[in-house]
Amino acid sequence: MTEASGGRLRPGPANSLADVAGLRVGHASRRGAGWLTGTTVIVPQGEGAAAGVDVRGGGPGTRETDQLDARNSAERVHAIVLGGGSAFGLAAADGVMGRLARAGRGKRVGPAPGNVVPIVPAAIVFDLGRGGDFCCRPGAEFGAAAYDAAMASTGADTAAGEDGIVTAGSNATGAVGAGTGAVAGGLKGGVGMASVVLEGGITVAAMAVVNCAGSVLHPETGVLYGAAFGLPGEFDWLAPPQPGDLADAARFLRPPGHAPARALNTTIGVIATDLALTKAQCAKMASVGHDGLARAVRPAHSMFDGDTIFGLSTGPTAGHQISAGNHGASDDGRSPSPIFHQLLAAAADCFTRAIVHGVLSATTATTPAGHWPAYLDTFPSAGRH
Amino acid sequence: MTEASGGRLRPGPANSLADVAGLRVGHASRRGAGWLTGTTVIVPQGEGAAAGVDVRGGGPGTRETDQLDARNSAERVHAIVLGGGSAFGLAAADGVMGRLARAGRGKRVGPAPGNVVPIVPAAIVFDLGRGGDFCCRPGAEFGAAAYDAAMASTGADTAAGEDGIVTAGSNATGAVGAGTGAVAGGLKGGVGMASVVLEGGITVAAMAVVNCAGSVLHPETGVLYGAAFGLPGEFDWLAPPQPGDLADAARFLRPPGHAPARALNTTIGVIATDLALTKAQCAKMASVGHDGLARAVRPAHSMFDGDTIFGLSTGPTAGHQISAGNHGASDDGRSPSPIFHQLLAAAADCFTRAIVHGVLSATTATTPAGHWPAYLDTFPSAGRH
Repeated sequence: MTEASGGRLRPGPANSLADVAGLRVGHASRRGAGWLTGTTVIVPQGEGAAAGVDVRGGGPGTRETDQLDARNSAERVHAIVLGGGSAFGLAAADGVMGRLARAGRGKRVGPAPGNVVPIVPAAIVFDLGRGGDFCCRPGAEFGAAAYDAAMASTGADTAAGEDGIVTAGSNATGAVGAGTGAVAGGLKGGVGMASVVLEGGITVAAMAVVNCAGSVLHPETGVLYGAAFGLPGEFDWLAPPQPGDLADAARFLRPPGHAPARALNTTIGVIATDLALTKAQCAKMASVGHDGLARAVRPAHSMFDGDTIFGLSTGPTAGHQISAGNHGASDDGRSPSPIFHQLLAAAADCFTRAIVHGVLSATTATTPAGHWPAYLDTFPSAGRH
Repeated sequence: MTEASGGRLRPGPANSLADVAGLRVGHASRRGAGWLTGTTVIVPQGEGAAAGVDVRGGGPGTRETDQLDARNSAERVHAIVLGGGSAFGLAAADGVMGRLARAGRGKRVGPAPGNVVPIVPAAIVFDLGRGGDFCCRPGAEFGAAAYDAAMASTGADTAAGEDGIVTAGSNATGAVGAGTGAVAGGLKGGVGMASVVLEGGITVAAMAVVNCAGSVLHPETGVLYGAAFGLPGEFDWLAPPQPGDLADAARFLRPPGHAPARALNTTIGVIATDLALTKAQCAKMASVGHDGLARAVRPAHSMFDGDTIFGLSTGPTAGHQISAGNHGASDDGRSPSPIFHQLLAAAADCFTRAIVHGVLSATTATTPAGHWPAYLDTFPSAGRH
């Protein structure tokens, strides 16, 4: 089902977070020998990006989010880290900070070129033990590898590196980076992305690491909640699963109040735009991203989830720029601005669509710790439209 | 469409906020001669209720919400006021405070029986000028009349009082109280309610004043977003509108980025339970209520909306009580608690259902300022299932 009245809207060239000019994305993952986890890094080029955050899950794991409060001092962030490994995985940001500092990128705090403190906010999902070994979690080397992949990336290229770490570039989705060990309501989760180009040429894009305690599908029909919110043609190929598939997969058709057997989950992500925004406007954009999450996952923001979304603006140092009167204030004397309204609506919808893509691009995983089938393997009739 | 796997769940006796033991609800409205607005009051009996709030719209109008911060001193609230009249309508709380003080109900601040300060948080919706006169807005007399109606109420009884104010009791919905002048995405809005009884006998219920800038229906199908989340039988009588209705009502099939022509809207409400909760838990319950709002309204939480939800717990002074180990902490050593998880999921779903009922019980309004048709008058084929 598509949105007839949204027919004017189209995705960016890759339907990816990297459709926002100035953003690079890299992933580092490790599988086997007890591993099933990874790290994702988003790197704004130039002077960094304005950023905000909204933390709405009951069990978050974050780093440097207080710097994103509009009252606090950081004006730009130099990278965002999304990772597996629960709170241990926040260590991946150490490696990203090291790479940025070596490149002289960060908040300047002294006269020498290397006198910088990179601002690298991070959030994690719970995936401990899913590869079989509770202690196999991302450290600084994952952050460094993901950063290197981001800087070298030309698309969805992948490469096997040292220490069993595999990297992937900007347009990769599914079981990559922070989505490597992700599980969504018992099904395999992963990284999903979506973008849209608004009238006037502003790009909005989202990345979601789908690892939710709640379900992504309606317990009666097996239809993905978020599939109703695609752009024309985006999810038209999906069909309601047939009764045989529903009967076979009844354990995934869970009522919304069902408490997960595993302790913790979490969906995290980023919403970005090339429209110039203040920190506070970035936070508002992140905030409505949680509406997109709620439309794709039910229930969301539970005490089993640490749901966190970052908002990034690459303007005015890169990408599309419009006059200040066109977003914060109104261009026609009305307040609030119709353009900012359109941006917020698109931000929520991009996050919903990113979650759907994360679920659809996930691949079935089996480890010593468990078996997590992908949606399209579990409900094959859904993909035969 | 109903939820097969939620078949164990049923609504409370009236599918109303007043299904939560210890809560009384009253409405005061005025229509004609420039008026189309009103006030709703929720009054917890006994020692009041624990309360929290989550303000997520970009243009809120509130009163006493800072007292609900878990760090601040108020332990119980003595009433909640929801009202029309934009920020002017906060004056209705004055009348409620007066009635409560006269009854000796409030936070005790001195030795005499009347030495009390009632804690009466309030939130408003924008409906100024919809009756034709911008200056016709609720004052203290509306709060007092709604309070009196709540205390006298035995159900959906209505009564005409002084000054053209009409009152209604606990189970009234539609164009009553704060919903009198409500408009939802161009259609007539109103007050809606829903409740559910969880396993173990805990009741959760919601009231929504549906006055959103966003739309309550999918722009391609005309189907109410929230109708997929009903209890068995609740919305089964609804059908997708037929093509003729969609063609006739094309102006209500708006893309999500469409900015409203009128400046401001806002959806507000209350979610309540008889389970004993802390202030912080009440705030969390209110917070996930916004997920229910996001599922029923798209977009939600815009800069044109001041979306605000209060969370109330009438336990332990009234209603269902369970041991402390069963909610804040876990009953089986797991944390978080499965019971609190179920409560939060139900809270979000009740708010979605309340919005659908608010839309379905709305009645077409025509004033010198405009014409706002009800959903079922606009899409009559939706009601002929």
